[in-house]
Amino acid sequence: MKVIVIGATGAVGKAVVEELGKRHDVVTVGARGGQYQVDFADIGSVRGLFAKVGKVDAVVVTAGVLHFAPLTSFTPEQFYVGLNSKLMGQVNVALVAQEYLNDGGSITLTSGILADEPIRQGASATMVNAAIEGFARGAAIELPRGIRINVVSPTVLQESMDAYGAFFIGFEPVTASRAALSYARSVDGAQTGQVYRAL
Amino acid sequence: MKVIVIGATGAVGKAVVEELGKRHDVVTVGARGGQYQVDFADIGSVRGLFAKVGKVDAVVVTAGVLHFAPLTSFTPEQFYVGLNSKLMGQVNVALVAQEYLNDGGSITLTSGILADEPIRQGASATMVNAAIEGFARGAAIELPRGIRINVVSPTVLQESMDAYGAFFIGFEPVTASRAALSYARSVDGAQTGQVYRAL
Repeated sequence: MKVIVIGATGAVGKAVVEELGKRHDVVTVGARGGQYQVDFADIGSVRGLFAKVGKVDAVVVTAGVLHFAPLTSFTPEQFYVGLNSKLMGQVNVALVAQEYLNDGGSITLTSGILADEPIRQGASATMVNAAIEGFARGAAIELPRGIRINVVSPTVLQESMDAYGAFFIGFEPVTASRAALSYARSVDGAQTGQVYRAL
Repeated sequence: MKVIVIGATGAVGKAVVEELGKRHDVVTVGARGGQYQVDFADIGSVRGLFAKVGKVDAVVVTAGVLHFAPLTSFTPEQFYVGLNSKLMGQVNVALVAQEYLNDGGSITLTSGILADEPIRQGASATMVNAAIEGFARGAAIELPRGIRINVVSPTVLQESMDAYGAFFIGFEPVTASRAALSYARSVDGAQTGQVYRAL
């Protein structure tokens, strides 16, 4: 299969590229690194990316920015950081991917444990991650030509515990390489409309 | 209690005003009708509203626009209709309400059955309704001074079946007056972070 991984230079993305690369031809995409670059918050940039890459069998997104802040000081603009990036960036990819995926192909997006397990300063993260899962649940019943869509929801990464561990006390982290297995289940499997929780 | 209902002129809002009016002083707000007007997609307009209304014990929102379209022709701009209105409109109200709610007050937002049960042309509705529930789940653990936040998720209204019935084949509709009971449970109850499904 030809698989495009958007966010391939991040911690999860690198592990996904390694895991999927064992069986598939992987095209790597980043905001700045990778074989191709994209600003996925801009659907025009996403269209330009797929016009260059062409037809694919699977699309994986492991990218997206979220803002964290106490609820009492959160601004609408800070909520839009995650809406424009992690949510609509991934929606943009899914919308364009419909045209470039071969029959029976798949789309795999990324949410996160905060969809289910809120933490302080995480109202936007819970909101955006829940929205991504909702989008996939809705899109799964409408995608044409047997195209599937799933979401991987990783818990905090072992590799991120130095930076974020203080916000995730009591959470058992997952290594990026174990989280990558959930993406493999989505890409190589046959389900649609699922949330694979990488815990 | 002094309760502000934003969206008071809609089908659900009218029934909520009638139900809550049995026990509470209700301030009605609409986009054009009601005692006060607000453009809740603009946090400045929401701030102006609360500056006029002053302290309250409960805030209820029954407003918000969503765009429906087939996934294959959905545009990012059409997804932003619901994000800017039904999602961020309600988030804006919650953010400002933090400052104007008395201790132990409550915020009650509105999602909808499509959060859980997708229909054709409803990818944005499922996404936005899931996001509203996610926001409330995240906000519930951070709100200060015992302030609570819940979401009511109504199924299709009996009163809307003439207009939308074709999209909701097999769904058992709820009357607006029965749906209003869920808002009463949130306002008069003691729970937080809940989704009350008005089915």
